[in-house]
Amino acid sequence: MAAREPVATLAEIAREAGVSAPTVSKVLNGRADVAPATRTRVEELLRAHGYRRRRAEASRSPLIDLVFHELESAWAMEVIRGVENVARQAGLGVVLSESAGRLTPGRTWADQVAARRPHGVILVLSGLDASQRALLNSRSIPYVVMDPAGDPGPEMPSIGATNLQGGLAATRHLVELGHTRIGAISGPSRMMCSRARIDGYRAALETAGLPVDPALVADGDFHHETGYRCGLELLRRPYRPTAVFAGNDLQALGLYEAARELGLRIPEDLSVVGFDDLPVARWVGPPLTTVRQPLTEMAEAAAKLVLDLGREDGSDAEATSVEATSVELATSLVVRGSTGVPPVGGV
Amino acid sequence: MAAREPVATLAEIAREAGVSAPTVSKVLNGRADVAPATRTRVEELLRAHGYRRRRAEASRSPLIDLVFHELESAWAMEVIRGVENVARQAGLGVVLSESAGRLTPGRTWADQVAARRPHGVILVLSGLDASQRALLNSRSIPYVVMDPAGDPGPEMPSIGATNLQGGLAATRHLVELGHTRIGAISGPSRMMCSRARIDGYRAALETAGLPVDPALVADGDFHHETGYRCGLELLRRPYRPTAVFAGNDLQALGLYEAARELGLRIPEDLSVVGFDDLPVARWVGPPLTTVRQPLTEMAEAAAKLVLDLGREDGSDAEATSVEATSVELATSLVVRGSTGVPPVGGV
Repeated sequence: MAAREPVATLAEIAREAGVSAPTVSKVLNGRADVAPATRTRVEELLRAHGYRRRRAEASRSPLIDLVFHELESAWAMEVIRGVENVARQAGLGVVLSESAGRLTPGRTWADQVAARRPHGVILVLSGLDASQRALLNSRSIPYVVMDPAGDPGPEMPSIGATNLQGGLAATRHLVELGHTRIGAISGPSRMMCSRARIDGYRAALETAGLPVDPALVADGDFHHETGYRCGLELLRRPYRPTAVFAGNDLQALGLYEAARELGLRIPEDLSVVGFDDLPVARWVGPPLTTVRQPLTEMAEAAAKLVLDLGREDGSDAEATSVEATSVELATSLVVRGSTGVPPVGGV
Repeated sequence: MAAREPVATLAEIAREAGVSAPTVSKVLNGRADVAPATRTRVEELLRAHGYRRRRAEASRSPLIDLVFHELESAWAMEVIRGVENVARQAGLGVVLSESAGRLTPGRTWADQVAARRPHGVILVLSGLDASQRALLNSRSIPYVVMDPAGDPGPEMPSIGATNLQGGLAATRHLVELGHTRIGAISGPSRMMCSRARIDGYRAALETAGLPVDPALVADGDFHHETGYRCGLELLRRPYRPTAVFAGNDLQALGLYEAARELGLRIPEDLSVVGFDDLPVARWVGPPLTTVRQPLTEMAEAAAKLVLDLGREDGSDAEATSVEATSVELATSLVVRGSTGVPPVGGV
């Protein structure tokens, strides 16, 4: 065991805050009967001193917190199922919340989690700011980011998928079918996963010696509506693409709608590749060729990792070794009916 | 205030169980440091005496429990969003679980909920047995059933949709287009909502003076795969239906696949109506005519009801009046591209 730096005791923090030790304890335990100003002062001192509860103090609730950037996301269900699988086996409940707008009067989301004392927190397409990290650290509540939205930084354990390889495989598939004018619809540029997919698209074109035409890359946001709008934009160009890598499945379905509206048949007139492999990809007509990312397995891995981190943090002997705290699971191309050879004679 | 029957005190239950009052208190508070046999004995006595905690004892966690029969259900997301909306406004977290197989060693799901002490429990397509009800009653944890799977009984507050009227509207729409040979795919017969939809289908045919042919009603289970299988079965009949009420949207999408496989065009050769109005109904080709049930609003209503029940139960003065504890929200037909007049000259 590495020796830890000595930190302030609860009594020292109480003295500095000018309150009793039981009051500091109440703040740590998330009790409601503390004046807001007192709670804020005590929290600030706990953070300043990098206070970490000892295991004996940290009686955890049998819960895992699962936080989504937004619950609209059509693949949220796949993630929930994965976390629920692991939680059930560990006898834990799953608390669901949305980070966007998750502020209740006087208490931030992180305060609520600190008060709840779950075994761990899984953040989906979402991050934590420094003060939220400090608050969770002070309660020894471990956290893991799934599919990080930005650069999570070395201190944020994360689970993702090989997005770059996925974008590469999708585009290479279209190149191999003979397409030379291949468009793409990106996700939001602030999301790492989205940038990586488009990087893969570019890499495949460059490797094949095909030009990367910026006019053929439309800016999407991973929603169906944008796939439709960007689809119309790309398909109405005078020299339109014969194939489009749609960035994700929802945008691919929007693109289907745009193609229908313009009287273009899939795959005869237009080949389409998605990303995610949601259940719906198999159900649409024609069934969608897409890049499968193992969302349920990723969520299971995130839940296992966060529980492992909790065990390592708390136990004195036989700490579980958590070596890999940034993991990417493999993606794979699933070829279905939406891709074919380019139309004879071109567009 | 109506006078309540006197019930056993905590001390009396402790005496009868042969344990100390603090041990009974530990059981009530869901603490783990009680021998399983003792806990079982105390729980039985609490149930037998119809023990209800007084509000002062019932320090609730800021949580709502949301229980699904199965998380596979494609419309679970719409329900989660509705409960999450109400919970967020009330400053509560949502704990998600699956009732199927939700048993951890030595503790039943209901024990976990009792230990968690949420503000309320919402059950989706799921019920509670008598002992689970007694356990939650003993902790003054209110519950509401959403879209009850069976007959919930008068003591189970419930939120549903007008399934019969929905099935009626779907089928009447097909009759009005001129169809006379209309098939249906049911959901599981144990589910009330499924039976009501098929009752509506029958009522519409009878009202129109059309025969109800049992051979045209296939037994489904609300999954995509069954829609496909039942679709093949119905569409391969020598004198096949020209329109099918598919029971729900997922079965309608399975039916799309069966029609594609048999070379039948929708709506030229076959009209299809779904039920639910999931987001995907708008995205498929052709967009699906379906019966909208307001899932998010139903979930919001269920969450509000369960919080109202909690307030009524706990507060002595100014109890919120909860009059309607069985509510059906209206369904409405949404006509899109999957329905049209029957093929000229019949099948």
